Amino acid sequence: MSVRLEDLPLRDDLRGMTPYGAPQAPLPVALNVNENTHPVPADVADDILDSIALALRDINRYPDREFTALREGFAEYLGHGLTADQIWAANGSNEVLQHVLQAFAGPGRSAMSFAPTYSMYPLLARASGTAWVAGQRDSDFSLTAHSAASQVREAAPDVVFLCSPNNPTGTPMPLDVIEAVYEVAPGIVVVDEAYQEFAPREERSALTLLPGRERLIVSRTMSKAFAFAGARVGYLAADPAVTDALRLVRLPYHLSSLTQAAATAALRHAPVMLQMVDEIVSQRDRISATVEALGYEAHASWTNFVLFGGVEDTSVTWQALYDRGVLIRDVGIPGHLRVSAGTDEETTAFLDALASVHSGS
Amino acid sequence: MSVRLEDLPLRDDLRGMTPYGAPQAPLPVALNVNENTHPVPADVADDILDSIALALRDINRYPDREFTALREGFAEYLGHGLTADQIWAANGSNEVLQHVLQAFAGPGRSAMSFAPTYSMYPLLARASGTAWVAGQRDSDFSLTAHSAASQVREAAPDVVFLCSPNNPTGTPMPLDVIEAVYEVAPGIVVVDEAYQEFAPREERSALTLLPGRERLIVSRTMSKAFAFAGARVGYLAADPAVTDALRLVRLPYHLSSLTQAAATAALRHAPVMLQMVDEIVSQRDRISATVEALGYEAHASWTNFVLFGGVEDTSVTWQALYDRGVLIRDVGIPGHLRVSAGTDEETTAFLDALASVHSGS
Repeated sequence: MSVRLEDLPLRDDLRGMTPYGAPQAPLPVALNVNENTHPVPADVADDILDSIALALRDINRYPDREFTALREGFAEYLGHGLTADQIWAANGSNEVLQHVLQAFAGPGRSAMSFAPTYSMYPLLARASGTAWVAGQRDSDFSLTAHSAASQVREAAPDVVFLCSPNNPTGTPMPLDVIEAVYEVAPGIVVVDEAYQEFAPREERSALTLLPGRERLIVSRTMSKAFAFAGARVGYLAADPAVTDALRLVRLPYHLSSLTQAAATAALRHAPVMLQMVDEIVSQRDRISATVEALGYEAHASWTNFVLFGGVEDTSVTWQALYDRGVLIRDVGIPGHLRVSAGTDEETTAFLDALASVHSGS
Repeated sequence: MSVRLEDLPLRDDLRGMTPYGAPQAPLPVALNVNENTHPVPADVADDILDSIALALRDINRYPDREFTALREGFAEYLGHGLTADQIWAANGSNEVLQHVLQAFAGPGRSAMSFAPTYSMYPLLARASGTAWVAGQRDSDFSLTAHSAASQVREAAPDVVFLCSPNNPTGTPMPLDVIEAVYEVAPGIVVVDEAYQEFAPREERSALTLLPGRERLIVSRTMSKAFAFAGARVGYLAADPAVTDALRLVRLPYHLSSLTQAAATAALRHAPVMLQMVDEIVSQRDRISATVEALGYEAHASWTNFVLFGGVEDTSVTWQALYDRGVLIRDVGIPGHLRVSAGTDEETTAFLDALASVHSGS
C-alpha cells in the first residue's frame, strides 16, 4: 500500500504541483506538439543505424565526455564561421537551457521572457531556483526593440530568453530586437531558434550577431527541422567561454554514445532533411490561408505551426476536432488554438475537420 | 577572439571551479573508471540494434514520457515483487540522484554521505543548491550501524546517500546500517547499489528493505553489470509516491526513444550479462590476491574494482603503470590506488605491470 505524495518530505515549493506535459492521446492525426510529422527518410535512418551499430561496439565504455565529433558536426551545419569550441549540446534544448540557468542564473538571480512564449522557460527557472520575470508582448504578440529593451532595462534580469520565432505564436522576431535587448541586458541573452529552419531562407539568423557579443547565446534543436524529437538533441552556439561555463554544471557524460552517434549521422544528411522543411512550410502556409478563409485569424508564422484566433469556445472546438480524430493544442491563449503543420494528408484531415466543425456539420 | 570565463556573468559559487571528470588517455589497458571492460556480446548487440531500428521509425515523434516498457523491464529484472510504478530512470544514475535532490533537497536543505565515497554526491548537492554534510567512516572504510545512525541523528540531513557497496573503497555495507540510518533519518535515504550485481549472490539487496519504508530509495545503474556505460541509464526503485515526486522535477521527455529501446532490449538479456559479471568477479578476486602477495593491502570488495593501500608514493606508481600502458585511478586517498577488474588479459597486464613496478624493474 503506497503512501501519498504529500506524506513524503517533498520540497515545499513543489507541493501541489502537477508534472508538465501536453495531454497525449493516440489519435490518427497528432498535430499538438509541433513535431515534424515526416518520418526520417529510410536511407538516412539506415545511415544512422550503421553509426549506432558502431557505437554499440564500445557501449561498455563511457561516452566521449566532450562529444567532439558532434560539436564539429553542429559547427559545420550552422556555418557562419562557427567552430566546435563554440558549440554545446544536451538531451533536448530544455536541458541546454537548464545548463544556461545553472551557470548564469539560479538562487538569488532572475530570468525573463516575453509572454506568451515557450511555457518551459518559467518552469526551468523555478527548477533552478531562479526568480521569474514575465515581460509582455503587444496584443498581436509582436515585440518591438523599444518595448523589449525598456522592459529588460527595468527588470535587469540575469538571463533573458528571446524565442525567435516565437512559440506558441509563430511570431518572427526582428534582429534589431535582439540587438537592443543585448545592449541593455546586464547578463546573458538567449535567442531560442528552435524553429529557425522554418523561417524564410533569406532571413538572417541571430547567429550572425554572435561576433563581439560574448553574452549572447543562440540555441537550436534537432527535434523540429531534423525530425528528431525522439532522439532528444538540443544545442547552442556562443562564445567559447560560455561553453566552458556550461562544462561546470553539466553532469559528466551527459550525452550518451547512442545520442552522439545518431545526431552526428543525421547532421550528415542536413540537405535532405531541409527539403522536408520546405514541404512543411508549404503545409503551414496552406493552413494559414485556409483558416483565414474559414474566418479565423491566422497569426504570421515563421515556424512549423499556426496559432489562429477568433475561436469562439476553444474547448468546444478542440473537443470537436478530437472527436474527428485530430489532436491540436489549446495553449491557454483565450480564443486561440495552435496546430502543427503535418504531412499533406494530415494537414488536409485537420482542415477538413475544422471546416466541418466550423459549419457545424 | 574569445573572452575569458571570468569575464562572463557566471554564478559566484562557480568561479574558480574546474569541470569534474577522470583524466582520460587512450592507453591500451584502461582500468580507471570502473567500466565493464567486456563488450556487449554480439547477439545481444544485434537484438539491441533491432530494437533501435524500430525506434528510429518514429524518431520524429517525442518519446514515451513515461518510458513504460523500460520501467516494466526494470521491475521484472529487479524482482522482489516490484512493479513499474515503483521504478524511475534517467540518463545515468547521476541524473537519477539529481532528480532526488531536486525533489527532496535543494536550497535550504542538506544532504549527507560518509567519506570516502562516490565523489559526485557533494557535486550533485552543490549543483542543486543543497548544503553538504560529510560524515565519516572508520579507518578501514567500514561503517557500523551505531556510527552511521549517530552521525545522521546529529546532522539530520534531508537526504542521506549510502553507497552500498561503497565506491571507491569496494566496502560492503551490512543491511543493519541501512535500517539504523532509516530509523533516525528525518528525510530520504538513498542506497546507491551501482555495484550490487558484483556482491555475493546470496547477499540481500536493500531492495528487500523497501516494503513499509516510503522514504527509502534504492538506485542502480546499467553502466557496470550491463556493460552499458555509453548508453547512460540509471534507475531506482522506491514507493510509487517517490516516483510521483520525481515526475515534478524531471525535464519532460528526458529519456530518448533510443535510450528506452536500447535499455529495454538489453534487459531481456540479463542472464547473459550476469554471466559476464561472474567472470569479472573472478578477475577482481585475482587482483586482490595478487596485490596482497605483492605486499599491498587489498580492501575487501563487493564491486568490480579493488582499492589497495600500502602504496609508498601514489603518483609515482600511477605514472609507472601509465608508462607501461595501464591506466588506473588515484582517487585521492593517501597511499591508495584503485583499479577496475578487466578481462583476463587486461587484468594480467595490470598485475604484470604492477609486479614490474614493485620490483623496480
